[in-house]
Amino acid sequence: MTVKTLRFVPLGGLGEVGKNMMSLEYGDNVLVVDTGIMFPENDMLGIDYIIPDFGYLKDKRDKIRGIVVTHGHEDHTGAIRHVLEEIPAPIYATPLTRGLLEVKLSRGGMLKGAKLNTVQAGERVKLGPFEVEFFHVCHSIPDGVGLGITTPAGLIVHSGDYKFDHTPVDGKPTDFGKLGELGGRGVLALLADSTNADDPGWTPSEAVIDGAFDQIFRQAKGRILIGTFASLISRMQQAAEAAERHGRKLAFVGTSMVENAKMARNLGYLQVPDSLIVSLDQALKMKPADVVLMCTGTQGEPSSILGRLSTGTNRSFDLRPGDTVLLSSHPIPGNEEMVHRTINRLFHRGAEVIYDPIAPVHVSGHASQEEMKLLLQLIKPKYFIPIHGELRHLKQHAGLAREIGIESERIAVVENGTVIEFHDGEMVVGDRVPGGYVFVDGSGVGDIGPRVMREREALARDGFVVVHLSLDRQNGSIRRDPEIVSKGFVFVRDAEQLFEQARAQVRELAGRVDPSDLKDQIEQELGRFFYAETKRRPMVLVFTSEAP
Amino acid sequence: MTVKTLRFVPLGGLGEVGKNMMSLEYGDNVLVVDTGIMFPENDMLGIDYIIPDFGYLKDKRDKIRGIVVTHGHEDHTGAIRHVLEEIPAPIYATPLTRGLLEVKLSRGGMLKGAKLNTVQAGERVKLGPFEVEFFHVCHSIPDGVGLGITTPAGLIVHSGDYKFDHTPVDGKPTDFGKLGELGGRGVLALLADSTNADDPGWTPSEAVIDGAFDQIFRQAKGRILIGTFASLISRMQQAAEAAERHGRKLAFVGTSMVENAKMARNLGYLQVPDSLIVSLDQALKMKPADVVLMCTGTQGEPSSILGRLSTGTNRSFDLRPGDTVLLSSHPIPGNEEMVHRTINRLFHRGAEVIYDPIAPVHVSGHASQEEMKLLLQLIKPKYFIPIHGELRHLKQHAGLAREIGIESERIAVVENGTVIEFHDGEMVVGDRVPGGYVFVDGSGVGDIGPRVMREREALARDGFVVVHLSLDRQNGSIRRDPEIVSKGFVFVRDAEQLFEQARAQVRELAGRVDPSDLKDQIEQELGRFFYAETKRRPMVLVFTSEAP
Repeated sequence: MTVKTLRFVPLGGLGEVGKNMMSLEYGDNVLVVDTGIMFPENDMLGIDYIIPDFGYLKDKRDKIRGIVVTHGHEDHTGAIRHVLEEIPAPIYATPLTRGLLEVKLSRGGMLKGAKLNTVQAGERVKLGPFEVEFFHVCHSIPDGVGLGITTPAGLIVHSGDYKFDHTPVDGKPTDFGKLGELGGRGVLALLADSTNADDPGWTPSEAVIDGAFDQIFRQAKGRILIGTFASLISRMQQAAEAAERHGRKLAFVGTSMVENAKMARNLGYLQVPDSLIVSLDQALKMKPADVVLMCTGTQGEPSSILGRLSTGTNRSFDLRPGDTVLLSSHPIPGNEEMVHRTINRLFHRGAEVIYDPIAPVHVSGHASQEEMKLLLQLIKPKYFIPIHGELRHLKQHAGLAREIGIESERIAVVENGTVIEFHDGEMVVGDRVPGGYVFVDGSGVGDIGPRVMREREALARDGFVVVHLSLDRQNGSIRRDPEIVSKGFVFVRDAEQLFEQARAQVRELAGRVDPSDLKDQIEQELGRFFYAETKRRPMVLVFTSEAP
Repeated sequence: MTVKTLRFVPLGGLGEVGKNMMSLEYGDNVLVVDTGIMFPENDMLGIDYIIPDFGYLKDKRDKIRGIVVTHGHEDHTGAIRHVLEEIPAPIYATPLTRGLLEVKLSRGGMLKGAKLNTVQAGERVKLGPFEVEFFHVCHSIPDGVGLGITTPAGLIVHSGDYKFDHTPVDGKPTDFGKLGELGGRGVLALLADSTNADDPGWTPSEAVIDGAFDQIFRQAKGRILIGTFASLISRMQQAAEAAERHGRKLAFVGTSMVENAKMARNLGYLQVPDSLIVSLDQALKMKPADVVLMCTGTQGEPSSILGRLSTGTNRSFDLRPGDTVLLSSHPIPGNEEMVHRTINRLFHRGAEVIYDPIAPVHVSGHASQEEMKLLLQLIKPKYFIPIHGELRHLKQHAGLAREIGIESERIAVVENGTVIEFHDGEMVVGDRVPGGYVFVDGSGVGDIGPRVMREREALARDGFVVVHLSLDRQNGSIRRDPEIVSKGFVFVRDAEQLFEQARAQVRELAGRVDPSDLKDQIEQELGRFFYAETKRRPMVLVFTSEAP
């Protein structure tokens, strides 16, 4: 009998490992977990979002038995359209996650062709040789699941994005019983969320927010504006309950907030009586002390409600003195500056602004170190593969696993693209498959590479200068004064002298240099001249036309 | 007798209030405190640094009795050359601060003309009607001072950047005695550092780092690389002492690190025996377990030693497996992404990387909430003006002051440019003076305004396209195929078809549109065409030349 191999490959580039997409393979069968996007970093200029390069899966497309999506956040769902264009496999998700996938697919006109299947936590689905058990985990969106995947090579447990909250808003803690039961069966490998591996202790429960809300609601004399993610349904629930306790009405503000609240209410994930909800128009006519507005914009996005309120450019209403703004979120790494700027501007406009760490108005949706150790103890895996984190988080998570007695040889810290194989129950870390990340910019997928990015960096730094030159075909002399236009380099009205000197240089070069070298020479000489004068290096482009 | 007015104006734009520069005026006399720069935020494209607009002081230049610099950090010293170009007043600073100012001035060839005066903590200097007492404060650079400024209108206390460290590395705690004595005299107004106003409790002492260093030094089998700021002299001292305790030699790596260590040793602020120091060349020849390398690059700067080591582009040496890299610093806000990327890359290259929060290898140099309250209790000011923080920090600091019993009417939370006056012992918050921040880009000071910045933003996002068109003067027809060049927009080699369609559009327009409108029409139509095809909006520029 030949030994069959189980293969695990996290897909993507430098970034969080296995966060956006991963594949599990056994023989001629592939199971895909998650189809997410990564958000661009500050120096990825002009990029809208980033998807994993799943070229590795393209020639296996007929072998893909299913795509399982663990929860409804963008970094697990956002690439669904790109994936379905190449891989027409059936999708399995819980009701809320499916609802969010449907919104995405219908925007792209792809809903009809998609094979969506609803699963509930507690159910199991057979996909080729994989038997997938979905179990409930707490996270910062309802209806998240972890996966127990029985394969012919052994049982794999995938934590999903999780925390161990004993008092979650929806009353459904992570399924400890199932985790214990899976552990009892004997687990070949655990793949577990490493996001907060740097954080000691235990992540606070969502319940701590109720107390903070109560205190703020008691003190607020005017309107209360709560900013959070449109996907954070449990926070909407908490805001609604606080509003009810303090005799206020609640209005959802902004398209995504309104749409998500509607869907979550329809699906039963948000339980708010109709009598508590008012429209924004109604809310604006009520006494300030009777109103809570639930808005987007916690990341300082200029086009969000809070972003526009902070700059005084919101159309339907403005901030008023006496308003209390409550930022119920943390900055996503890279957004800190924008978030802090927005907070300063909200203060500047007269609002009282409350944010963590001023008050515990947000908690993380991810497990901290003690929870990570507990998961490891419950699952008691033979092998441990930390996922969902940058390399530094995986290294810390591995350190925690060693602390509780898992030997280094049984832990695999890998980067995206690395193949991990299980041969007859033994783990082998293999080579890397080609891959990486793909930039999406406008409608272009993958056409922005290092070259265009370097051009954008140069233009962002120093702008450009175009020189337009009309030459006499006979003798190569200049027919009219060179035209020079610049953008992003200097303020042109103040730089007339600089450009006059530049034009003189061009005239001088045209009279001296061989016409075939003229373009290159002007580019070089003007580059040098501008650097000497301004210590900046604008891109210089020269266009010549010839006429008799 | 006429009532004389004392005026306080923090200078600069939106940003930390009074951090980089402020003025204090009485009659025809001005005292300037600090001459610092602000670091550009991520969306200030191409900007090297930012200085306060001190135009307000230019017509008072003959009345400026002195410039006092509280400590040697860039945000308090970095603009000295720009300030001295306009304001040739005498400068007062402690020895280390003076040393750092001299380095800056000599690089700009301005040392000879500068009137530098050394003061020691504990001394007092009379500058016109101002009697300035310098008192020692702990901070993340030695030789920092706070100021007691006796004026005819009353006593003003300025905290400088401070913390209350009972066990500082240099053995010199903040001068509690002087603070108490100033408080006893009766203080009209306290200006105090608000940087950490969001942080509860008491900032840990520098001493906690010794324990963390010891633990790391005990475990490290190979070389130890410590990354920190080149100005953090006390950290150099701690590294040297840890090296000595664990039988290792210390090498300083990188120009700024080597230069600052040399100056600090000459001035007596860094006390390290010669026998402990080796050159980098010597260190590289020694056994890894015998070596500590002290480097720059804790902010992820690509050109720093740690930045180059993380990308494998350092010239003199590479990382080796077994190296321990210790990041003894926190990311400056806005640098988080770069710092984390550098940490991931260092791990990727096989180093063990230790950073806060993994181990307490860095502490803040600023006071936390309990220290702020203690300062307020010691000084017992009539009026309180929180400074050195963004608006959100000032608001929190004001809240702390209210908690300990200072009424709201006696607290002034203002933004840069706001005039605060004291008339006969009463505080009045006045109007704003013109001002703001000035961008420095290359050798240009203030020539980059909103317009050029918007151009850079547009270029960074979508690049540009230049169309060059040669027209027949007689009939306006196209003489040769339009030339199209783009940068930062699409990868040109893959976009031949797009540009061919664009050329066809240009030809069609040239045949149809009135020559006088042609340029505008092409810019508009091509803009629309490119957006429809790519969902990007490159800048489009058209150049035409005419020939018979």
